[in-house]
Amino acid sequence: MSLRVGGRRPATAAELGLMEGAPPPPAQHVTLANWLEGPFNRWGFQHASELVPSAAVSRGDGPVLELPTAPADLDRVVLDGVAETPTLSEFLVDTYTDGFLVLREGAIRYERYFNGMTPRSLHLLHSISKSFCGMATGSLVERGVLEVDGRVSTYVPELWDSGFGDATVGQLLDMTASVAFNEDYEDPDAEVQMQDRAAGWRPRRSDDPPHAYAFLASLRPRDAHGRAFQYCSATTDVLAWVLERASGRRYQALLAEELWSRIGAEHDAAITVDAAGFAFANGGLSASLRDLARFGHLMLHDGEIDGFRAVSPSWARRRLEGEPALVAGGEFAAAYPRGSYSTQWWCTGDDLGTFYGVGIYGQCVWIVPAASTVIAKLSSLPRPLDPETTRDHHRAFRALVAFLLESEV
Amino acid sequence: MSLRVGGRRPATAAELGLMEGAPPPPAQHVTLANWLEGPFNRWGFQHASELVPSAAVSRGDGPVLELPTAPADLDRVVLDGVAETPTLSEFLVDTYTDGFLVLREGAIRYERYFNGMTPRSLHLLHSISKSFCGMATGSLVERGVLEVDGRVSTYVPELWDSGFGDATVGQLLDMTASVAFNEDYEDPDAEVQMQDRAAGWRPRRSDDPPHAYAFLASLRPRDAHGRAFQYCSATTDVLAWVLERASGRRYQALLAEELWSRIGAEHDAAITVDAAGFAFANGGLSASLRDLARFGHLMLHDGEIDGFRAVSPSWARRRLEGEPALVAGGEFAAAYPRGSYSTQWWCTGDDLGTFYGVGIYGQCVWIVPAASTVIAKLSSLPRPLDPETTRDHHRAFRALVAFLLESEV
Repeated sequence: MSLRVGGRRPATAAELGLMEGAPPPPAQHVTLANWLEGPFNRWGFQHASELVPSAAVSRGDGPVLELPTAPADLDRVVLDGVAETPTLSEFLVDTYTDGFLVLREGAIRYERYFNGMTPRSLHLLHSISKSFCGMATGSLVERGVLEVDGRVSTYVPELWDSGFGDATVGQLLDMTASVAFNEDYEDPDAEVQMQDRAAGWRPRRSDDPPHAYAFLASLRPRDAHGRAFQYCSATTDVLAWVLERASGRRYQALLAEELWSRIGAEHDAAITVDAAGFAFANGGLSASLRDLARFGHLMLHDGEIDGFRAVSPSWARRRLEGEPALVAGGEFAAAYPRGSYSTQWWCTGDDLGTFYGVGIYGQCVWIVPAASTVIAKLSSLPRPLDPETTRDHHRAFRALVAFLLESEV
Repeated sequence: MSLRVGGRRPATAAELGLMEGAPPPPAQHVTLANWLEGPFNRWGFQHASELVPSAAVSRGDGPVLELPTAPADLDRVVLDGVAETPTLSEFLVDTYTDGFLVLREGAIRYERYFNGMTPRSLHLLHSISKSFCGMATGSLVERGVLEVDGRVSTYVPELWDSGFGDATVGQLLDMTASVAFNEDYEDPDAEVQMQDRAAGWRPRRSDDPPHAYAFLASLRPRDAHGRAFQYCSATTDVLAWVLERASGRRYQALLAEELWSRIGAEHDAAITVDAAGFAFANGGLSASLRDLARFGHLMLHDGEIDGFRAVSPSWARRRLEGEPALVAGGEFAAAYPRGSYSTQWWCTGDDLGTFYGVGIYGQCVWIVPAASTVIAKLSSLPRPLDPETTRDHHRAFRALVAFLLESEV
């Protein structure tokens, strides 16, 4: 693996002594200025609420969706296609995994924790958060408080002359709104980093907008909406703002009431909030590994199973309505010629019906309907995104699913 | 009641529209600059983690200490001695109560929520937090990692030339360390407000210390230690720092492992943390109302009952070793001539063995061994502290306990 340095496995937060000591020595001090980067994120992603103010997303008092365990020995499954052809257990260590779970037909077949994570730990989901926002939208649409064809400025008049004003809710859902926005996570001058600063994720600069609402209203138009896919984190936050105005509730309350309290979650989730109380819908959700897998399990069943519900079947299937032509030209299309993006899900278009939610630094929920399989991986990779690591993750998940199908595990 | 304005009951956070709207209008915006004050604290005390970064204090996976319910109709109990002689239900409304619970012989006899609070809500405990720190200390002392007679500077050499260096751990526990410190909660130039700013509880000033550790080391000596009681919030934070150094663990981990995971808590608690990850031991804990009552119930039984344990019986009884002479001269001594303070508990010296933990803005756990009664009250009073309101609270609790004893409810 390209990530392995001199054959050594990545150090854990405890081995690095991160945030140990009273006070921690400077070299081990995880701060708002470094927590997103490796190696500081080895501690940071399991402690987001200790760095950024956060709201609880309550599971309520309902029953837990029980996940029986039926362990399969997958440690030595060889991941063909992945660089250096590791076994699964090697791959997990090499890719800075914090938690990894394979659910098949609703049973936990494989569950591993690393780097101090436990079944009770919350871990930052980064942009998997977007898929939750897409599903929460379904509840409001079906209740008639929100129209997919409605314009953003109908719900949020302040956005009328921003880049989003004349986009539709559907275009937000499908990331076909067009806006001047640089999503380069490692460029301090990119809009995505200004968004982080407005959200309280990074130290503020004096001329930053005071909160996400002001930031979103400041974004400028680019091209006509609806003509091409533009993956943009601000788009999901605009969607959350629309949900708030349509429902009269804050996004964190809506997410708890419409979704988290209905999926049989075992633990409360948490979501970071900014100075105006805006919950960072595009990337700020933290959840336990099993609860992420539960959400995947419900999505595998088109949103509903055994009285638990993430969203209606018709809204769950809206993910299939994305146009492959819209995503043409990028790395995703190169990997998945029939792939598409809709309702905040990546759909591969493969024969197994595979779709997924994904976040930077190695977060993924990989859902394979034809194999009745959900794979959840939470990680703290040193860098937000690189094509080789992404390809290896996808190859690993596909190899693992192929093994499950062939061996009938 | 002096608090009632023109006969109207206090407005709730929802009635005030606090933090509603996306973004909230300025007049309804709860911020780091106003959340401690009324009316903003009506929202703030149930949402501390949304204003100040916070660590989870895990309940672990152990059993819950079940509290059976045996409702008694106490609404109309008349509280003799309290100004304007209200009934209990009037008193609760008038004193900005968010949650109120009466536990007798381990059963919930009365439980009321106001202002949007629910059994699942966490509420800031303010200085009741100190009593938890006092009990967590017991575990380390009994394990032999900490000596009550040990000097602060033995554990924390950085404090050698501060006001705390030559105080003993026992003097910290009993608030007889002497240090130059103004505990006037409403004076922006008082040390207690600088402590808040260092802890991330208020907007920083440019010359503030970067975190609690630096703040505590900056405090200067006053008189000789051990000669008089000096209620000082910094003293508890120094105690927590000593615990961290003695145990090699952060205070939030220690609190979870030594105490919260053993008391049969129903919910995780949370504690605010500052830029160095220091958990605000003197006032930053948030808990559910029932979990606060559970802690009181264990203390009623000298720390242990039915396999649950807050602390050993001998450490629980250390509260009784305070010298009344040390607290002489203040309002507490005027109310309780046999009263004393020890191990972070206020002991009234009355015939019922009443002792309590208390926090500004109306937080109290009132523990009455001879009546097998625990009263827990969480509130969001408009001002931190005034003698009349304090007296009325004590009169109300005593009147309620007298009613329970007389009526054999």
